[in-house]
Amino acid sequence: MALRTDEPGIRGLFRYQPEAAQPLNQLSEVLLCGDSPLSRAERELIAAYVSSLNRCRFCYHTHAAFAAVRFPEGMALVDQVRADPESAPITAKFKALLAIAGAVQRGGQEVTEDHVRAARQEEATDREIHDTVLIAAAFCMYNRYVDGLATLACDDPGHYAQRAELNTGYVKVWNDALDEAV
Amino acid sequence: MALRTDEPGIRGLFRYQPEAAQPLNQLSEVLLCGDSPLSRAERELIAAYVSSLNRCRFCYHTHAAFAAVRFPEGMALVDQVRADPESAPITAKFKALLAIAGAVQRGGQEVTEDHVRAARQEEATDREIHDTVLIAAAFCMYNRYVDGLATLACDDPGHYAQRAELNTGYVKVWNDALDEAV
Repeated sequence: MALRTDEPGIRGLFRYQPEAAQPLNQLSEVLLCGDSPLSRAERELIAAYVSSLNRCRFCYHTHAAFAAVRFPEGMALVDQVRADPESAPITAKFKALLAIAGAVQRGGQEVTEDHVRAARQEEATDREIHDTVLIAAAFCMYNRYVDGLATLACDDPGHYAQRAELNTGYVKVWNDALDEAV
Repeated sequence: MALRTDEPGIRGLFRYQPEAAQPLNQLSEVLLCGDSPLSRAERELIAAYVSSLNRCRFCYHTHAAFAAVRFPEGMALVDQVRADPESAPITAKFKALLAIAGAVQRGGQEVTEDHVRAARQEEATDREIHDTVLIAAAFCMYNRYVDGLATLACDDPGHYAQRAELNTGYVKVWNDALDEAV
């Protein structure tokens, strides 16, 4: 595909179809920066984990960077979670939530009562389970949009780290990027 | 999961988390009812086809009904596309677009240059390919959200047919449904 843009990942798509960009942007803002019992760091890590399972380089690097700057252990933790959530130094509750996210990545019907029971045993709330499922589902969309149209992706972590320092939320980040590029 | 709602499918989820419902609703409105070179009927059929591949009963029945009332051949056409798009009585261009939608359902990287070349040979435009990819990707999200949280689904086509007659767009349909239920 040639969408007449040199911008990487979803940013080129947002410019191509601004009408769809608006709700897509707003959704990522609500899911990752809005009200939730999960921390911003945890939500970025769920986004990075699902993007890694979907092998979506642009989304993985983007959200890995956003997660890394928000965990004291930095990218080392993100790498451990990507490689094997079960052995990563995260809480049992967050492991159970990542198992749900991994099931969602395979398909909605892959989430079993056992997954939900295990999360509840670790005191995950309905809202935490809900937010995990919706973030994982949303990245199954973003990942497919980005890769289905064969957008550009850069593999230099430094490229993503700079943006990840921002705390302003996604709508502002993208709007600023659009303004810059006009 | 028990999200304290008896409403089926995504409607119960929209009530559970209205902050996320707003952009999710707006996205379906833009994708299915907004400006596009694809007809509303074709877009509903892409949504139904992808939901069928994801075995999401609520979304399949909903969008199958919306498509059926918009094609002269009705549900017979939807059933043929669901069973085998290649032998269904649709244009070669739309078959090529459905092949792209099917690839997106499997994963973003499943969309190959051959898929895109085949669609272009049938004179599909960039925008038609873009809209097909984004609708297919979005239903990979909606389907996972609905099934990942084990919402209720009804299998009576009559239940869905009534709503499918509406021409007002998704935001109005859902807002009316919320008003009714308050």
